[in-house]
Amino acid sequence: MTISPLAPASFPTLPIIGGVRFSTVAAGVRYKGRTDVMMAELASGSAIAGVFTRSSTRSAPVLDCQTKLANPDGTNDRAVFLVNSGNSNAFTGKYGINSVNAITRKVADVTGVPSARIFTSSTGVIGEPLPHEKIEAVIETLSADLSENGAEAAARAIMTTDTFPKGSAAELEIDGKPVRIAGIAKGSGMIAPDMATMLVYIFTDAQISAAALQALLSSLTDKTFNAITVDSDTSTSDTLLMGATGASGVDVEGNAAFADALHGVMLDLAHQVVRDGEGATKFVEVQVSGAASDDDARKVALAIANSPLVKTAIAGEDPNWGRIVMAVGKSGAKADRDLLTIRFGDITVAENGWVSPRYSEEQGASYMKQQELVISCDLGVGTARSTVWTCDLTHRYIEINADYRS
Amino acid sequence: MTISPLAPASFPTLPIIGGVRFSTVAAGVRYKGRTDVMMAELASGSAIAGVFTRSSTRSAPVLDCQTKLANPDGTNDRAVFLVNSGNSNAFTGKYGINSVNAITRKVADVTGVPSARIFTSSTGVIGEPLPHEKIEAVIETLSADLSENGAEAAARAIMTTDTFPKGSAAELEIDGKPVRIAGIAKGSGMIAPDMATMLVYIFTDAQISAAALQALLSSLTDKTFNAITVDSDTSTSDTLLMGATGASGVDVEGNAAFADALHGVMLDLAHQVVRDGEGATKFVEVQVSGAASDDDARKVALAIANSPLVKTAIAGEDPNWGRIVMAVGKSGAKADRDLLTIRFGDITVAENGWVSPRYSEEQGASYMKQQELVISCDLGVGTARSTVWTCDLTHRYIEINADYRS
Repeated sequence: MTISPLAPASFPTLPIIGGVRFSTVAAGVRYKGRTDVMMAELASGSAIAGVFTRSSTRSAPVLDCQTKLANPDGTNDRAVFLVNSGNSNAFTGKYGINSVNAITRKVADVTGVPSARIFTSSTGVIGEPLPHEKIEAVIETLSADLSENGAEAAARAIMTTDTFPKGSAAELEIDGKPVRIAGIAKGSGMIAPDMATMLVYIFTDAQISAAALQALLSSLTDKTFNAITVDSDTSTSDTLLMGATGASGVDVEGNAAFADALHGVMLDLAHQVVRDGEGATKFVEVQVSGAASDDDARKVALAIANSPLVKTAIAGEDPNWGRIVMAVGKSGAKADRDLLTIRFGDITVAENGWVSPRYSEEQGASYMKQQELVISCDLGVGTARSTVWTCDLTHRYIEINADYRS
Repeated sequence: MTISPLAPASFPTLPIIGGVRFSTVAAGVRYKGRTDVMMAELASGSAIAGVFTRSSTRSAPVLDCQTKLANPDGTNDRAVFLVNSGNSNAFTGKYGINSVNAITRKVADVTGVPSARIFTSSTGVIGEPLPHEKIEAVIETLSADLSENGAEAAARAIMTTDTFPKGSAAELEIDGKPVRIAGIAKGSGMIAPDMATMLVYIFTDAQISAAALQALLSSLTDKTFNAITVDSDTSTSDTLLMGATGASGVDVEGNAAFADALHGVMLDLAHQVVRDGEGATKFVEVQVSGAASDDDARKVALAIANSPLVKTAIAGEDPNWGRIVMAVGKSGAKADRDLLTIRFGDITVAENGWVSPRYSEEQGASYMKQQELVISCDLGVGTARSTVWTCDLTHRYIEINADYRS
């Protein structure tokens, strides 16, 4: 598999997070000759929070995580994240929850962590029974191999159609003491229920209550993982889990610097998912301003970012601003044709209901040749803003998705 | 340009509609060597109704038609539909309405029809000034050439990226007297603001008030032209205009047979637009039943029909029912994973939250090789239904839309 042209140069160095250990193994769930199960163990008393897909057909592991977070139990015990690639355990009927329970039971037996603190995720083919016995068979090995240094290996074990492993980290000082955040992610289509889905695991040695961590994570998700789109399709398995071990001894509740650092890690990981978008050759930031409401701003940004006609124009390096006008028009947001301003980077393309007198097609065509693009659109009817990130729609997307299972 | 593999074998014979005359001409708006302006003249007293794009960035001719229909004047006079291809006169600022006014004035001068009864449409590139003087220059010729037999030529003159002209007709007897309906359409992407848009003109010799015609047309549009999607994008110029001359002497107000016949003509034309969808190789009917509300049924049908992952799977002849589950899940409609039933034609693929025990992948793969597909999805949570028609998403769509203006 060719690595995405938008991939970062290398995997970042992730700091060791006190109280977190990783291990990975090749269990042969579906792939041969590569790791496909990862375990992360978090120290006793770690605060855990999570954000999940809103799909009404979400998978058994997602439903199980949601139930456990809604009814926290054993919060002074250790916690475990157990993730497999190769099979999503989604749309597998009653069999799905049986698999989750079997794996959870085995992890509890081997590690002594209570079931209520064991969170599983699965990503891969949909609608096929998860061969959970293959996963149960490797739990002892995973438990024995736990090490503080395993984050990059964990990022590789959760990949499916990803062309590169995704990691991001931040280190900051609060009251003279170091606090560390490290995250890993996978995701390649916004979703392709066959073999993709977005999974994210973030760890910190900060000290924070589960309730405060949950509130922070949910609010930052809106500006990061919920502000990216590859193809407008939504996974049945999207999962973001975060654990805070408190090993740094630094209380970060309400700390703005910590929130900023976490936002940075989440945004970096979210951007990496877009950069690995199926068939992507351009990374596109869509900025909407001047909207009548936040909801309108987001509607317009997503209408532009999800429009097949806008995305194919970007793939073709065509400065086709008419398609942006079209997307604004169809979004359902309050807009006035004659108050719209459209820019490519710093170039004003259209204003006052028509092409800008200062704009030339050559300028636009030259801008579109860049690999990183900013398309901005001011609606001129209010003050609300929204930013969304996406990629282009190429022949390679069709190849990947029209030919996948054959 | 290769004709779509989904095209009808030939253009249908359209009946002459008493009181309607057509003419076409090559005005050189953009294309060379083909007709690009058509005029339809309707007899004095014809009832006129219309349905238009809901885009907030709609074009000057659309806004003009809407104003005229909302404030009917000169209703005992003749009426004219004047349509050009090659330029959509959309997003052309104040210049746009000037062009509409200039053309309207010229038509009024030459034909003696009052401005309030002259309805113009434009389709083609967006954001470029309409060379309205080229259109004004051919109005005398158009007026002199009007003939009852010109419907097929009119269907050809309004084509842009269409690969075949679209027409449909119905003839029925009411109280022993014949009533005729004839319609023409163009459209190829649901919209590509460069060179596509959906335009539809329907004529009948039935007698009906403008208000009753408008109510009938609006209600039938929901089940026909508003139930098709090629790529989820919405034109700034979509226009459906209908004229009823009354020449048959048959009053059809409240007549169910007439409504059925008109529904048939509209559905046929709508299907032809999908069959000419950019790059289409499969014609797909998406049936949703068992929804909690009409709105939910439509949401699910459109989520399936617009999903890039569903559409690429269809292009690849991949019976990928997991992507249907995904689309149901993301739609926002009330759904329960374990109550879903998914069928390909008569084949039950998934039920009770999992693949059907009677289903085999070979069955599905063989079904997907057909050119005409029915995907049905019963949500099992209510009684509401919705049907939507779409096509697949292929390499050819990317070619057409990534390379269009170059």
